[in-house]
Amino acid sequence: MAPQQIGLARPSDPGVDAYEHARALVAADLEKVNRLIIARLQSQVPLIPELARHLIAAGGKRIRPLLTLLAARLCGYRGDRQIGLAAAVEFIHTATLLHDDVVDESELRRGTPSANALWGNKAPVLVGDFLFSRAFQLMVEDGDLRVLEILSQASAVIAEGEVAQLVTANDTGIEEEDYLRVIRAKTAALFEAACHIGAVVAGRSRREEEALARYGLHLGIAFQLVDDALDYAADQARLGKTVGDDFRDGKITLPVLLAVARGDERERAFWRRTLEEGEQREEDLATALTLLERHHAVRDTLARAEAYGAIARDALALFPPSPARAAMLGLVDFCIHRAY
Amino acid sequence: MAPQQIGLARPSDPGVDAYEHARALVAADLEKVNRLIIARLQSQVPLIPELARHLIAAGGKRIRPLLTLLAARLCGYRGDRQIGLAAAVEFIHTATLLHDDVVDESELRRGTPSANALWGNKAPVLVGDFLFSRAFQLMVEDGDLRVLEILSQASAVIAEGEVAQLVTANDTGIEEEDYLRVIRAKTAALFEAACHIGAVVAGRSRREEEALARYGLHLGIAFQLVDDALDYAADQARLGKTVGDDFRDGKITLPVLLAVARGDERERAFWRRTLEEGEQREEDLATALTLLERHHAVRDTLARAEAYGAIARDALALFPPSPARAAMLGLVDFCIHRAY
Repeated sequence: MAPQQIGLARPSDPGVDAYEHARALVAADLEKVNRLIIARLQSQVPLIPELARHLIAAGGKRIRPLLTLLAARLCGYRGDRQIGLAAAVEFIHTATLLHDDVVDESELRRGTPSANALWGNKAPVLVGDFLFSRAFQLMVEDGDLRVLEILSQASAVIAEGEVAQLVTANDTGIEEEDYLRVIRAKTAALFEAACHIGAVVAGRSRREEEALARYGLHLGIAFQLVDDALDYAADQARLGKTVGDDFRDGKITLPVLLAVARGDERERAFWRRTLEEGEQREEDLATALTLLERHHAVRDTLARAEAYGAIARDALALFPPSPARAAMLGLVDFCIHRAY
Repeated sequence: MAPQQIGLARPSDPGVDAYEHARALVAADLEKVNRLIIARLQSQVPLIPELARHLIAAGGKRIRPLLTLLAARLCGYRGDRQIGLAAAVEFIHTATLLHDDVVDESELRRGTPSANALWGNKAPVLVGDFLFSRAFQLMVEDGDLRVLEILSQASAVIAEGEVAQLVTANDTGIEEEDYLRVIRAKTAALFEAACHIGAVVAGRSRREEEALARYGLHLGIAFQLVDDALDYAADQARLGKTVGDDFRDGKITLPVLLAVARGDERERAFWRRTLEEGEQREEDLATALTLLERHHAVRDTLARAEAYGAIARDALALFPPSPARAAMLGLVDFCIHRAY
């Protein structure tokens, strides 16, 4: 089965509709979050809003702040603390993106040139630090030490995961568990925290807090698995991404690990040469795609994502049916079937 | 007067003695801070302590945590909250150094190769993020929202100042005030916060808090002015620094601004070519040193530092004489007369 047949949505897909539905449910909150983000990007140094807006305002999916808003709504919260905290979550995410771009030298993100392609390495690192500090200022204004604890812990885990990825990123001999540990930290930890704090502001029980954290964690893992699968399957024109970016960067993601594990010695030598030693020739990406296809590596990565998505869905069983719960269940479909 | 005659200390100088005296006064606390720093550098990812230790354990002066310890002592504080907060301050500082190295491509820091020369740009950015997160975790454990507010505000100001420096760094036409605004943010804000929180943990009055913050701010400005002067005057073998690093990086610091302002059109053309356009030839550093000498630029930068140091000293007049106050007054001498 070709990847197109199982994972990639077309416009007006159920996944895409689910995302729009979730957004619509908290549209007023999301608008407040957007306004707060713009306000807190202001600085006497014009380069800061200029550079940050490039990423933040460039029509990102706002999936992480959306999770905070939906989790608070699911918990019946009626105040407005979720606004500032959702903005803080998005600032942490954007800071991570800016710093991650330094690392990856990725040339395209969301269809526009990455911040680093435009500004070099200097400014994005420092603007990322500014956003990170702004995130903490927003949390301090909120004034809840448990929220601060959850988000500062998530930030440490993310940074730790990013460093761990540097170490494993070039090793085709790592196990699926090693890879999972990395994406759990670098991606899923913030999804987890974003959901968790929604329950905290609502003052819900630890059991409910934990259920929402579990939902976020597994959704985040599914999200990253799909991201890694899409890198070998996406239609560049629609995604603004090049097929094989990860391949060219020598990144070892699950599709590759599956192909390595299922391949013969000659194939493993190919992966070692292209990804560990970084010796790539013109025709290597085509060969890589052929090997991935032969071993159903993209399909099975997406199947793993489905399995994590199922755990995320089950975590919400604790909560009675509601529009917020339906929206969060729909977001699982979106994360798995998204194609844009 | 040559710079050696006025600013640079020799071993057993009053400045150096003052530093050792201040350290000795809070030696037990400082030892606890060091142990806490080592403990919190631990990670499942060995690269993190390895890389961070390179900077943190490499015998830095610990001037910022020392300020927190001394300020708490000056305020008569008897608990142990200053330990965790001093460690947090040092983590913020180290994160800034790591990120600053990405920017400067400076090759030597404290006599050992910079983290970036050893590990490239990737790891130092991410390890910096980890340290920054660890700093916030330490503050959250402390649990005082006012401290969190002061330090998250300082972090934002530092990042803003670093970005502002990118913009002004290549412009020989900026005014002394512009330069002062940058160093106030990128260096003095953390000195200020480090002192300020010492008063906060001790529960002292706003007036005393403000006096300590003012001491730290002006000490920090003096410290940076001396740093910028030393770059054109230091003895590389003793400092582990190359004379003229800032010159080669095209950085516009106060010595240069003074020489530009006092020079003729031909001299200004020299500074524009070498620093703005980055066209440097073999003999340019020698020319730069000659011009700086001609206009007493290093001497007068150090004189400015003296003036800020005097404001720092006066800020402590609010407090009755005590060993801590004497040590903090001595630190002003150290910062101005340090040569190592």
